[in-house]
This record gives sequence, C-alpha cells and structure tokens, in this order.
Amino acid sequence: MSTAVLGCVTGFLTYETPKSVVVKSWSVGITNRVMQLVIIAYFVGYVFLYEKAYQQSDTAIESSVITKVKGFGRLNDRVMDVADYIYPPQGSGMFCIITRVIVTDNQFQGRCAETERGFTCETDANCTQYIGSVLSSGLITGVCLKASNETTGRCEIEGWCPAENDSVKMDTMEEFKSFTIFIKNSIRFPLFNVTRGNFPATMNIKTCTNNEKDPLCPIFRVEDILKETKQNLTQLAMKGGEIGINIAWQCNLDQNIEKCIPKYSFRRMDAPFEKNRISKGYNFRYAKYYKTENGTEFRTLHKAYAVRFDVMVTGKAGKFSLVPTVINVVAALTSIGMGTVLCDIILLNCLKGAEQYKAKKFEEVTEDKKEPAVTPSPGSQRSFKAGMKSSGDSGAISLYMSD
Amino acid sequence: MSTAVLGCVTGFLTYETPKSVVVKSWSVGITNRVMQLVIIAYFVGYVFLYEKAYQQSDTAIESSVITKVKGFGRLNDRVMDVADYIYPPQGSGMFCIITRVIVTDNQFQGRCAETERGFTCETDANCTQYIGSVLSSGLITGVCLKASNETTGRCEIEGWCPAENDSVKMDTMEEFKSFTIFIKNSIRFPLFNVTRGNFPATMNIKTCTNNEKDPLCPIFRVEDILKETKQNLTQLAMKGGEIGINIAWQCNLDQNIEKCIPKYSFRRMDAPFEKNRISKGYNFRYAKYYKTENGTEFRTLHKAYAVRFDVMVTGKAGKFSLVPTVINVVAALTSIGMGTVLCDIILLNCLKGAEQYKAKKFEEVTEDKKEPAVTPSPGSQRSFKAGMKSSGDSGAISLYMSD
Amino acid sequence: MSTAVLGCVTGFLTYETPKSVVVKSWSVGITNRVMQLVIIAYFVGYVFLYEKAYQQSDTAIESSVITKVKGFGRLNDRVMDVADYIYPPQGSGMFCIITRVIVTDNQFQGRCAETERGFTCETDANCTQYIGSVLSSGLITGVCLKASNETTGRCEIEGWCPAENDSVKMDTMEEFKSFTIFIKNSIRFPLFNVTRGNFPATMNIKTCTNNEKDPLCPIFRVEDILKETKQNLTQLAMKGGEIGINIAWQCNLDQNIEKCIPKYSFRRMDAPFEKNRISKGYNFRYAKYYKTENGTEFRTLHKAYAVRFDVMVTGKAGKFSLVPTVINVVAALTSIGMGTVLCDIILLNCLKGAEQYKAKKFEEVTEDKKEPAVTPSPGSQRSFKAGMKSSGDSGAISLYMSD
Repeated sequence: MSTAVLGCVTGFLTYETPKSVVVKSWSVGITNRVMQLVIIAYFVGYVFLYEKAYQQSDTAIESSVITKVKGFGRLNDRVMDVADYIYPPQGSGMFCIITRVIVTDNQFQGRCAETERGFTCETDANCTQYIGSVLSSGLITGVCLKASNETTGRCEIEGWCPAENDSVKMDTMEEFKSFTIFIKNSIRFPLFNVTRGNFPATMNIKTCTNNEKDPLCPIFRVEDILKETKQNLTQLAMKGGEIGINIAWQCNLDQNIEKCIPKYSFRRMDAPFEKNRISKGYNFRYAKYYKTENGTEFRTLHKAYAVRFDVMVTGKAGKFSLVPTVINVVAALTSIGMGTVLCDIILLNCLKGAEQYKAKKFEEVTEDKKEPAVTPSPGSQRSFKAGMKSSGDSGAISLYMSD
Repeated sequence: MSTAVLGCVTGFLTYETPKSVVVKSWSVGITNRVMQLVIIAYFVGYVFLYEKAYQQSDTAIESSVITKVKGFGRLNDRVMDVADYIYPPQGSGMFCIITRVIVTDNQFQGRCAETERGFTCETDANCTQYIGSVLSSGLITGVCLKASNETTGRCEIEGWCPAENDSVKMDTMEEFKSFTIFIKNSIRFPLFNVTRGNFPATMNIKTCTNNEKDPLCPIFRVEDILKETKQNLTQLAMKGGEIGINIAWQCNLDQNIEKCIPKYSFRRMDAPFEKNRISKGYNFRYAKYYKTENGTEFRTLHKAYAVRFDVMVTGKAGKFSLVPTVINVVAALTSIGMGTVLCDIILLNCLKGAEQYKAKKFEEVTEDKKEPAVTPSPGSQRSFKAGMKSSGDSGAISLYMSD
Repeated sequence: MSTAVLGCVTGFLTYETPKSVVVKSWSVGITNRVMQLVIIAYFVGYVFLYEKAYQQSDTAIESSVITKVKGFGRLNDRVMDVADYIYPPQGSGMFCIITRVIVTDNQFQGRCAETERGFTCETDANCTQYIGSVLSSGLITGVCLKASNETTGRCEIEGWCPAENDSVKMDTMEEFKSFTIFIKNSIRFPLFNVTRGNFPATMNIKTCTNNEKDPLCPIFRVEDILKETKQNLTQLAMKGGEIGINIAWQCNLDQNIEKCIPKYSFRRMDAPFEKNRISKGYNFRYAKYYKTENGTEFRTLHKAYAVRFDVMVTGKAGKFSLVPTVINVVAALTSIGMGTVLCDIILLNCLKGAEQYKAKKFEEVTEDKKEPAVTPSPGSQRSFKAGMKSSGDSGAISLYMSD
C-alpha cells in the first residue's frame, strides 16, 4: 500500500524539461548571441530603464486648481480691476480675461430698428422673409422702419432696444499683457496616496515670477505666456482667443518626493481655426440688470472679447512594485528564447549542413495504421519503437525523401 | 593560450534549439494546422486589423470647446435673448438654456409668512418644530402668522421676503426648440502633436445645419438634438433636464489627416432618474440684486428650470510605431506554438498510438542515489549514460509501468 | 500525380512537438511542482479572481453631476439663502459656499487713498516707485495723499473708490456646517451602454441623510463631510478651502446590476498648502453693479472666502468577455512552463547528477566543414549522423571538455 502511494508521489514529483540540440556553429552562434543581446538590450534599455516596467503606475490624477489674476487696465475710460474683467470670478481652472467690450447701455424691452446691415429693407416684404431669423438682435416683426426722408431702412425687431451695434470701434485693454496669473495646483495620486502642491511652502510668492531661473514660481505674466505661444498680443486682445496652460507632473516615487515637480507649457488652443474667415477668436455676451425707480428692468448688454485660459493638469506617477517587476523579468527571460525563431530559419535553411541539423533537431514518428493488429502486446510495441528509433533518428527530412 | 581563448569563444558561440518530435498523423496534423490557422486568423484579423496593434495610440486628448447659442424666445411677456436665457454666459462646454422661470420680484430682508403648504400652522408650537428646517424659504422664527379671521396660517420666516411661491403656474419658452447651438471644438493629441478643428476652414458656418447630409457642420438645432434623444420637448421645457453632446474623434493618423473628423451623438444624461417621483429634471436658483434710492438692497429671485447641455469630447489616435509592431509580431509568432497544448493532449491521450508517441516525446532520466559512489570517474558516468539511454529512450510512460 | 499531392498533403499535415526529458528526482520534482503551484496560484488568485482578467473593462466613464445646497445662515446681519451664498449658481459638480465676505459698498470710479499698509508714504516719490504694481487696489497715480496734520499718508490710486479694506474683522457664517448638499449623479459606461443613478428611484430623498446606515442617500451634511476630512470648521469658514467629494463606481456587470452602487469619500484638496504662510485657503472677488438715478454705475465689491466643493466621479466596470479570458488562460498555461527556468538552473548546476542531466538534456551537433566534400551522398550523410549520435548523445558539457 505505502509502496503504491510512494510510487504515485514519485510519479507526480517529476520534472519535464525540453530536450535541446546544441549547435556549435560560428554563424548561427553569432546570430543567436546577437539576437539575445538585442533582446536583452531592448528589455534593459527600453522596457526597464526607459519605460520603467518595474514600476506600477498611476495616471488617474486628482487635481484641484485655484487661480487668481492681478493687474489693472483701462477700458472705455474706466479703470478695470479683477472683479470687472475676470469671468467667471470664482478662480477655477478656466477663466476669461476680458480685453475688449462692446457695451450697449440702457436696453429696455420694446421695438426698434435692427442695426445689422443684413437687415436693410425697402418694404415690409423685405423683412417678413427674415421672420424667425436667429441672426438679428431680436424677434423680427416683419415691419420695415424708415426715416420719413429715406428710401431704405432697417427691419423692426422686438426685444431689448436699442439693438447692439457691432460695428462700433472699441478700444482694447492692452495692459492685460502685464497682468499676473497665480496658479495654485494641488494634485494627488490616489493609488499611492501621494499629494503634492505646485510650489514649496518656503517659496516667496509675493515677489517671484515664473521664468527659466525660477521654474517653480506659480506666478505667470500674461506677456510671457503669449510669447511662448507666439501670439500677436494686439490681435488676441482685439478678437479674443483661448490659451491652454498645461501642468504636467511626471513623478518617479522611487526617488526623492521633492523631485516630483510640475512642468508648465502653453499653447493656443483654438489654433486649428486660425485660418477661418469667420468665427475666429472668442467672445460672449452677458448683461447687467438694473431697475428704474418705478421698477422697470433695464440692462446693459456686453459683448465681451476675451482671452480664455484653460489650466489642464496631467500626471503620471510610478513606484516600484513586485508584480510588474516579476512579470517583466519573466517576460524578458522567456523572450531571450525568441531569437530561436530567426536562428532556426537560418540553421535549417541557409547553412551548409542544414540537412544534418534538421536530422538532429527533428525526430519523426508516423501513425502506424496496421501496428495495433500486428503487434497487440506491449512487449512488441516496445520492440517496434526500438526499431523505429534507428531510422527515425536520422531526421525528419531524410524520411520525407523515403516517403 | 590562444587555443584556450578560441575554445572559450567557440563554447560561447553555440546555439541551443529545442529538439522536436515530428508526428506524421492526419488527425493530429489537421488539429495542429487548424489551431495554427485560428491563431493566425486571430492575430491578423483581430489584433492587427481590428485592434490595430501595430499602432501606438494616444487617448489623452486635449480639448477645448467654445459654444454659442442663437435664437429668441418669449417668457413672462418678455423677449429673451442669449444674455437672458444662457447661464453661464462664457460659452464653455457646459451651458444651460433656461426654459421656464419662477420669478419672485422685489425681495427685501425681513420677516413674512412662508408660502409652502408644508408650513401650515395653527399655533406657534406648530412652527417651533420646524426651527432649523432647510426646506423653508428662510429661517423659521417659530411664530405662526394668521390672518385675524382665519384659524390656520403659515409659519413666519426671516430672510428675503416675500417668500417664493413655487405653485404659481408659469409658461415655458417652447421656442427654445428652434435655437441653434454652435460648437467650436479644437483637439490635440499630445503624443503625436496633431491638432484638429471640428469643421474645415472652408465651411460656410453662416448657413449650414448639422444633419445627415452635412455631418461636419458645427451648428445644431435644439429640436434635432432632442429628437435624437427621444425627449418630449414640452416636458423637458417644463421640468428641465440634461443633454449630453458627445464628440468622438477616432483618428487613424496613418491615413490622410482629413479623415480625422468628429462624430456627434446625443443622449439624455439624467435618464436613470426618469422614473423618480421627485427630483426629476433640473433647476437652480439665482438672484439679481438691485438697490433702492436710499441704498437698501433688494433682489429678484429666479428659480430657473433649464436644459443643461454638456459637451464631452473623447478621442483616440493611432499611428504606426515600430515597438508595438515588433512586440505583437513576436507575440503572434510564439503564439502559433500555443496550439501544442491542445494537440499534445490529443496526441498523448486520445490517439490509438498514444503510448508510442509518449515514448518518443518523453525521455526519462532518474536520480541515481548510489551512482556517485559506484562510478566516481567521468568515464564511468558516460558509460552509465550510454546504458541508460537504451532503456530511457523507450519512453516515460512505459517506464512508469515498470516502477 | 495524386500520390504526389497526397504526399504533399501528408507532409503538410504534420505536428511538431518538443521532445522532453522527464527527470525523476525528488528535489527537482518538488521545486518544479511548487513553482507550478505558485504560478497557478498567482494566475487563479491574483490575475483571475483579484484582477478579474476574464473581464473586459471600461474606465471611460461618462458622468453628469447636479448639486443642490439647502440651508440658511446669517452673515453681516443678513439672512443668506442659496441664491446668496452659492457661486456659481447652476448646481454643477463644482460650487462654492461663501462663508465670509468683505464687502466694500458703493464704489465709484475715481481717485482715493489706498488702504493697504504696504502703500504708506511720506512724499510722492515714495509712491512713484509703486506705479505699475499689481498689489494695490487700483492704478497707483504716484501721488501721496496725506491729511493736513499728518506726516504719513497713503498713495493715491485711480479706480474703484473707496478702496477695499482687507483688515476689517468680518464674521463668518458658521451655520454652513448644517447645510445639506444633494448630489444627483448619473453615469454611463459607454462600452457596455450601462447607465446608473446614484440613488434608487424608491429612495425617500426628502428626509434621508447620508451616513453609515444609509450609504446610498445622496444628501450630505457639510458637518459630516468636514468631520471625515478632519477639518477645523471655524478655520475653514474663516480662510476658505477646497473639499473634494469623490464618487467611485466599481461595477462588476457579471453580478446583479443593483450591486453597482457608488462609494463616497471626502478629502481636503488644498492640503499640500496647509503649511504655507501665505496663500492659504480660498477666496475670490466679485462685484454687484448698480446704477444711480442719473445713470452713473457703481458697484459693491465682495471678497468672498468660500469652501469650494469639487465632485469628482471615477469608475470602472468589468464584464466577462471571451477574448481576454482566452488570452489569459493561454498566458496561464504557457506560464506554468516558466518554472523550468529556475528548475533548469537547479537541475544542471546544483544537483549531484548534474552532468548526467546535462548529457540527457543537451544533444550536440557541430558544424563540420569538411563533411560535404567527404560524404556528398545522402546515404553517407545518414551514416555520419548515426556516428555522431553515439558521441553527441553524451551531452553538451562533456563534449566541451574534449574541445
């Protein structure tokens, strides 16, 4: 009984390893070693050192951005401060600096003439065709308003009057180039529970400005940003635009955490539309509402041309981890054997002694259809194998010939 | 000396290739080739053609969205334009079109009766229980306000008075269905430094409308969007809701860049809550502030029911790259050998000549505990091996039997 | 002809399987089986059960967040409601609860003295150095304003007057701790087209509060959130801050969809800046604009200290899929053979019978440079191989010795 168990255990505790043919040939040997070298170099250089495959990585960065703009400008004979030219005011990652405004003051609900040239008319019939248009400044009523001594006029609209006059020349607030943008960015890599701020606690953020010498200062001059994006300041102030501020965190948490610092880059976001004839730039309309003494509401319409800033935070952190390391070491070890694919092709086809190598590498066994009938006993089966061995050993290809 | 070096080099320049057994059997041969065909088909069809494994891909899309709504509607006897019904006004990827507003005019700080039915009272005791409630329109003072000739009244609140009356019937601005939404979306794949806009520079965006014929026009009618999301326009205007506008970029940068165009799709975002009894739809409160002549602030409270639009941009770009191509070709080549797992099972267990195949495939070597003592010289070891060969060659399984 | 075709087909329908050496040794056998056990355990336990490698997963979650705050507080002798203290009002995933405001009433455009201590002056020369400063409350004119009987004064500014006085002691609205935040979050996994809401349709969201007993209630008390982030309420109300609300969806779509529920967690987002001397907390400036009877615009400037809440939604859904299952099963099966790397090292170097195993595992074949000339006929080639066999079989290493 115990012998049977022991036999069973012995049968189980076996180790199966592939039988190998060792070829001593300079040409294949060199090819083999060069292939192995290339594969090792790829794994060590690219996979491990460059791609850091021994690390577990986290790109699901959690980020919070607080921004604050400072500076003063003059627009339409008024000194503008942050509360005037920043929209939305809450200092989030996306904010607009208004650089030019077309103001339409004291608009009341009523009926008046459209100001857009497209709505010039001679008769009411000219206007009825525009009913339902979304390009006017109000609902087209279908009436043509003309001064008594004129033959052409403008279609009447119903809505906020007087209508906005887009063609008015307005100044731009070019002082915005000297404004400073303070960006407070805190990030967290949830996988490693690492949090970082974009500037050290010891930094004097009252006086610094971000530049090559001080790459960690979180205060940026608008002019510097525009210079880096190669934008024409005057045109940007006139037409508006969108600037992306990218904060990239590349953190190797196996190193000192103090080396986990952000890199800033800037680009014009609406660049693909620069060649468009219309719909260049960026503007939006908003209104301030007032009430007269008797309670009638009126408003001031603002068509604001603005430079929109978008702070985008991307990040990747890596830290040594056992599982990817083991997986990649095993992958590297097994990949070293990959060279055999190429070497086998050379060995079995291109070398002089190819036939010989084939014979050594391949051992053939054929399906013997009559065998069970002729030699039904295990003993004879073994003798058959022994017989087959002598010829089978001479290799796959030479037997193919004898078929 | 030089001979030793040569010997060492020769010893190093060897090539080790697994010794194979070639089985000539129709059944296993067919299984083997079919397996290989399946594996090749999987790699060529799925991995390379469908999944484009020869490409490096970038999904970390940088995107900028500018929106602009146009159109006029009537609400509470006023003509509403963009500055009135859009919130927030800055034309970002998220914006609300207000379709219905409950306006509470001329609210001053003070004390007055609550309007909500839930705060009906007969005595002050009825109201003191509500102190601290967040469901009222102001701080509950604990006093029950009753008209002199009534037995029931409403609890008194402190705050902005008069309190909002939610039960007032208000009209909806159904004209919002004819509004148009212009979406300007520029994207960038940072890995490949490719930027694209969602419409070509040559497109006439003054007159076009997005539909099947013109899939690149960036101007959408609200009605078309709602039709695609199968939403009831009247109910949406009444209760508010949230519509997602998805812009999907699937770019194969190995092809002409002009084929890298966006696809638009729409869906109701708050669909999971449609069956809820309460908290359907979407509304928010905001106030406009005014001052009387003597400087007292008062406000108009707006409870705005709105359709919120969320523009979401997703994208993936792929471009041929050497590293993934090589990795996947190698993976494909080595995977072709994977068929052996199944074939070996068939060969060694299911075929008639299984014993014969086993004998050929497996060569056995046993741990010989006495051997070092009996035959300590290398020569005898060699002879031992030669002796073992004759029997070991007869295969693993037949030897198991002799245990 | 047909024989040739048959021969060709027969030649094609072959199956090549590596020839193996089966080693019956307890030490290597145990090592081998333990290695296989570890690999199987790794694949079954980690890859399949823990990492769920049999599933296709989707992390590109589409999410929509609607928030609504309720509660009343007192600030500067006024009762504040949602429309007063929430900014921006539209109930998106990011919103601020204003807890303290420095109000500067009735600002008109003009010239007046700066209030900041940094701009103290004795002569105009003291002030001209500040021209262009962005730290003042308006454009520095370069004039020093002094009361007639004083020797020191403050620099004159041009802009909105009077200037904001930051040093005024203002109360905080501590009642904000009892405010409730209602979060309506609907998500969608685009790959599986699964949509979910963060609370069931049957939940009574009028009365519930999120706590351990009721983890699905979407209504959160600010106090509970702050407690979980271990924040000092008074200091937060005084200085402002940023709280992240993370909603994590981990959905196994192979299970009942009702188990796909969100998990909420909270943390202080601006934690990395807590030790900073300046730029702690969170505040922003905004203005309300008014008009006098004669049309002059004036404004009330608000410097609002606020607690900003950021709702962040992350998610991952997995569902059984054939392709990853097959790939990983194949990877598991082939990896079981990986143990050979370690076992071979033991077998061929550490065991007593190492030489014997080497001889069995390696079969050598050398490049024979003269052979083609001496034995050009296939028959003699075969005999050469037979001859080589007898010595080659004795193993790679023993032959190295004879070099």
